[in-house]
Order: sequence, then structure tokens, then C-alpha cells
Amino acid sequence: MASGVGQIVKNKQVKLKGYVKGFPKESDLYVTSDSSIELRVPDGSPEGTILVKNLYLSGDPYMRFHMGESQKPDFPSFPLDAPISGFGVAKVLESKNPEFKVGDLIWGFRIQWEEYSLITKPEGFFKIHHTDVSLSYYTGILGMPGITAYFGFNEVCSPKEGEHVFISAASGAVGQLVGQFAKLKGCYVVGSAGSREKVELLKTKLGFDEAFNYKEEHDFLAALKRFFPKGIDIYFENVGGKMLDAVLLNMRAHGRIVVCGMISQYNLDHPEPVYNLASVIYNRVRIEGFVCFDYFSRYSELLDAVLPYIREKKINYLEDVAEGLDNGPAALVGLFSGRNIGKQVVAVAHE
Amino acid sequence: MASGVGQIVKNKQVKLKGYVKGFPKESDLYVTSDSSIELRVPDGSPEGTILVKNLYLSGDPYMRFHMGESQKPDFPSFPLDAPISGFGVAKVLESKNPEFKVGDLIWGFRIQWEEYSLITKPEGFFKIHHTDVSLSYYTGILGMPGITAYFGFNEVCSPKEGEHVFISAASGAVGQLVGQFAKLKGCYVVGSAGSREKVELLKTKLGFDEAFNYKEEHDFLAALKRFFPKGIDIYFENVGGKMLDAVLLNMRAHGRIVVCGMISQYNLDHPEPVYNLASVIYNRVRIEGFVCFDYFSRYSELLDAVLPYIREKKINYLEDVAEGLDNGPAALVGLFSGRNIGKQVVAVAHE
Repeated sequence: MASGVGQIVKNKQVKLKGYVKGFPKESDLYVTSDSSIELRVPDGSPEGTILVKNLYLSGDPYMRFHMGESQKPDFPSFPLDAPISGFGVAKVLESKNPEFKVGDLIWGFRIQWEEYSLITKPEGFFKIHHTDVSLSYYTGILGMPGITAYFGFNEVCSPKEGEHVFISAASGAVGQLVGQFAKLKGCYVVGSAGSREKVELLKTKLGFDEAFNYKEEHDFLAALKRFFPKGIDIYFENVGGKMLDAVLLNMRAHGRIVVCGMISQYNLDHPEPVYNLASVIYNRVRIEGFVCFDYFSRYSELLDAVLPYIREKKINYLEDVAEGLDNGPAALVGLFSGRNIGKQVVAVAHE
Repeated sequence: MASGVGQIVKNKQVKLKGYVKGFPKESDLYVTSDSSIELRVPDGSPEGTILVKNLYLSGDPYMRFHMGESQKPDFPSFPLDAPISGFGVAKVLESKNPEFKVGDLIWGFRIQWEEYSLITKPEGFFKIHHTDVSLSYYTGILGMPGITAYFGFNEVCSPKEGEHVFISAASGAVGQLVGQFAKLKGCYVVGSAGSREKVELLKTKLGFDEAFNYKEEHDFLAALKRFFPKGIDIYFENVGGKMLDAVLLNMRAHGRIVVCGMISQYNLDHPEPVYNLASVIYNRVRIEGFVCFDYFSRYSELLDAVLPYIREKKINYLEDVAEGLDNGPAALVGLFSGRNIGKQVVAVAHE
């Protein structure tokens, strides 16, 4: 039995004050220690229930959909009377489930933003078997963003050696990986990011051939032509809007655009227009939407491919770790202004 | 030697008065009989030259690009001092080319809009071997629109039995074929067109399950939801603009949009905006641009598949035949107001 089990403790939580419109603000969320939890699986709990201690929480742009009054069935609104939730890493403290033992480390979906959680139906979790790498990596390079980058790039984009790859939000949780996977494939790789510091990191720490600060460019098409005078073969789309419109005018024949996210659009009441779609015809461009869940069943391929790179330090992974749930709201909201540098993690506890 | 060879005859031609801006008007073109031609391959002509009599000319939306002051290298402007040109069917009157014999029928690209043409480099022509079907079909179902419909639908869209298919400009040269190919695959097929007459033809002559007149619909999304309450699997895109934007909101998961043309955009100085691209993410939609030239090398597959259907009357093909070059300008310009019903052909001569 793990230490502390049986005690009644305060259970700090992050909740939504109300449904968000437009850009989320830190004040849309609050941290509360009003509730307590007994550190055991209560008698009468459904068969299969586990009690977990939450370690690392993942701050991800898609969470914005759950913060609003959603009309999308795939993105139900967060309840206002419970903590928000997302991907995360947790440790099993007590288990009434044959699949999970006390002490098991797990990562997966619908980890609540609180210190301890009783999970009555633990579905969609992976057990963590490799602990020689940072546990927080299971919110990033070895978690959902890793799956997104690995399969979104290698499967959907079908990259070939020597191709010219452009990545927006390039220093983010996904983009930094796509760039490194593309370099490992022998591609020429350029990223855009929102600050000089991020641009420097892309070039010095993440191995991008070139990078630029989109906030310093008045004409995105001119910037793209500077770095891709012969055009772009693969665009890994994370932002949408004006950048996509410029990219469409600078794609090479048979180019591919994988659309993993459009963070620039998530806080707008009305999406930005895109004008240049007709250019997909003459350039035979393929645009393809991508949802990482479709590849979760192939997770072991990511581990097999990426763990050796991590151990051999052939891939770097930048994380921005906010310490403690008290810093959770700012960390989450900061995603939408690009405050984070690298993968945004909230460390609830380190073990 | 074919009859008439050696004579000097007037050679009626259709030319552009000047480069077109916005919607083309009939008065942007003119018909002239100012020039004459001697019906022989002149001495000193380059090796390989042939003299042809033009029979059927194809009026196609893409020709709009050549009518303007083009900035696209793939679509050079028509010269003002020569006839316009496009796909067509012609008969060889004299040949200095071992590949073409007198009397051969050919179809292909860069047939000039005139009665007779001297072709110094006959490249990109197919010989016509099957003459039990209408020769004009080689501008349509057995020509470029046939290749576009057949490979655009069967290859790019990967259709499966029972899937729900939507086709815009559905009674046009390409759309009417896509609908019939889709029915042959066992799909549910709905088309949009621009008049009640066309809608009736789609349902009565072309075997579409449903059809609607987009000019009578104020809300395209509502119209699409009426015919596709569970969404669209395949959209064969011929028009662009607002229709595409509505379709994006009604695609099913893993839906496919093949973009063969965007006729609604060709005459606009600034393309219409599309707002709903983010929806490709959650629905994993693939949008793919398509150029028929990529499939010309597989032309024999089209013949093998479609000739039996034509002979067995399992496929209908609606043509709108303008008689004589004098009616050429109106026929060509009419494409952009939807005046044509079915494939627009200009018959210069019937044999």
C-alpha cells in the first residue's frame, strides 16, 4: 500500500468559472482547495475503480474547445462543478482493477486538473514502462503530441529525403518534433514562431535549417519565398488563417499540407477567411485533416522509434514546466498568446 | 489524297480582341475569314508537319485562364494574332509524319479554333480508333472531361459502395459523368446545377438520386443537410467559393474532396473567401487538387471502361453542340453563365 493511503487530504483543483468567449483569460479559471478526498477507493465503488495521484498535466490548445459552450459533440464543455481535464501522467495509489497495480505509472486522456483523482472507469490509459526518461515526456514527445508529430508527419505527409518542409508554431509541443523528424529524414526544414528567442532555439537547439518570427513579417508570402524560393513540399499546419493562405500560394507540385491544428482560429467568433484554395488544383496539393486518436493503437511504434533517439540525444525536447496547480491557469491560458516555450506542462507533483 | 487538298480556301478563325478582365463577353472574341490557307503541307515545312481539318472543338472553363493576361506559367495568354485553341477533334488531310496517315482522326490539345490547321509539331494527340460512337465524344466523355471524371472520381476519391456523393456543376461536361460513375459504384448521388431544366435532366436522364438548383437556395448548408442528413463522403468540386464553404461543414469523417475546378472563381479579380477549413481537422477530411494531364498516360483504361457502357447505353452523355465557328464565341462565353446544357462542343464540320 502506497504511503498516505487512507488519509483524508485537501485536494487542490483547477476549475472553470464560466464558459469562455474569445481569448481565454487567467481569471476564467480558479484554483480551489475546498474539497477533500480520502486516499482510498471507497467501499461500493464500481468494479475497476482506481485512485491516482496526478503528476504531470498537459496544457494543449484543443482544450479551448472544452472551455467554451461547445456545439461540437466531440468537444463537450468542461463541467463547471468539476476540475478541467486533459492528458496527463499519474501514479496509481490504490486499485480495484486487475489491469492496474499500486505504483503503476500511467498516461492518457481525461486526467483531471487536481492532486488526486478517483477514476471509476480507467479507459484510454497507457501504462508507462520506460522510466529512464523524464516522466513529463509522456505529456509530450512520448504522449499525444509525439503521436501527432510522428504519424502526422511520417504517415500523412509521406516525406522524402531532400523535400522542403515548413512548420508553423514550430517550437510548440508538436512542431519542434516535426522539425526534428523531418531533419532525420533528410529534409530541409524551416519553422515559424512568435518570438526571437523561439527562433533562436529552433536554429540552435532543435536543428531547424532556418526559422523566422512571424510577428516581424508583414508579408507572409514574401517571407516564405525568401526561405522557399522553389516552394514548399510539406506544410505541417498548426495555426491556420493568414499563414495557410500564404502557404497555399507557395506550394510545389504534389505538395502536402497536414492540418493538425489551427490555434490562431480557436478564439475567434468567426474564423479568418482563406482565399487561395484554387491553387491546390494546378499544384495538385493534398490538404488532409488529422486527429491523433486515429493512431493511438500504433503507440508502440512511436516508442520504438523515438526512445532510442531520446537516449542517444539525437532528439531534444523543450518543455515549459509550470510548478504546481496554482500556476495551472496561467500556463493553460498562456498557450494562446504563445507565452510557453516548448511543450507546456503543469507539474502537480514530481512523483 | 483527301478531297480538296491543294486548293486555296478561306480559313475561318475565332480570335481574341484583347485580354479579358472579369466575366468574358461574346464581344471579347470575333470570327474572321480574313486569312486563307493552301490545303497542303508547304514545301520546306518542318519534318513531321501535318495538315488537319478541324471537326469538333471543346469549350472548357479552363480556357478562361488563357483569355486573360496570365501570370501563371502553366496558362500562357492566347496570342492575339492567332486563333484561340483548346481540346478538339480533327482529321488528317495531309501528313509529313510517319505517325499520322491521311484520313486519321485525332483528338488532343491545342487544336486551333479555325477550319484548317497546319500543325508543325503534332504532339499530345491521340489517334481515334473507335468511330462507332459520336466523334464529338472525344471532346467529352472520351476526351479530357472523361479522363477528369474517371480518374478524379475513381482514383482520387477512392469511392466505396453506399457512400454519399455530392457533385457541383453536375450537369456539366465532367459532373454528369462523375454522377453516373458514382451510381455504377453503388453510391447515393446528389448534384447541384443552375436551372430547373438541368435539375430535371440530372434526375431523369442521368440517374442522379437527387438534384437541386443552387440558384433557388439561399442557404447552401441547409440544402446540403436536406439531401445529406448524415453528411457527405465525397465531394467532387467544380465550382469553389460558397458551395465549398458549405460542404466543409457537412462532410463526414474521412470524407474526400477532389478539386477539379472552381468555375465560380475564374472571373473574379479576388477569389471568394472560404471560412470553414478548420472542419477538415476533426472530420479527417482530405482535399486534393487534381489535374487531368497526370492521367493522360492511362487513357486506354478510360476507353476500356467506358466504351462498353456507351454501347450498352448504360451511360448517357449530354452535349450542347453549337453549329459552326460563327457560334463559337457565344458558346465559349456561355460556359461562365451556365448557358450550356451538358458538354459544350463547337462543330466546325461533321467530317
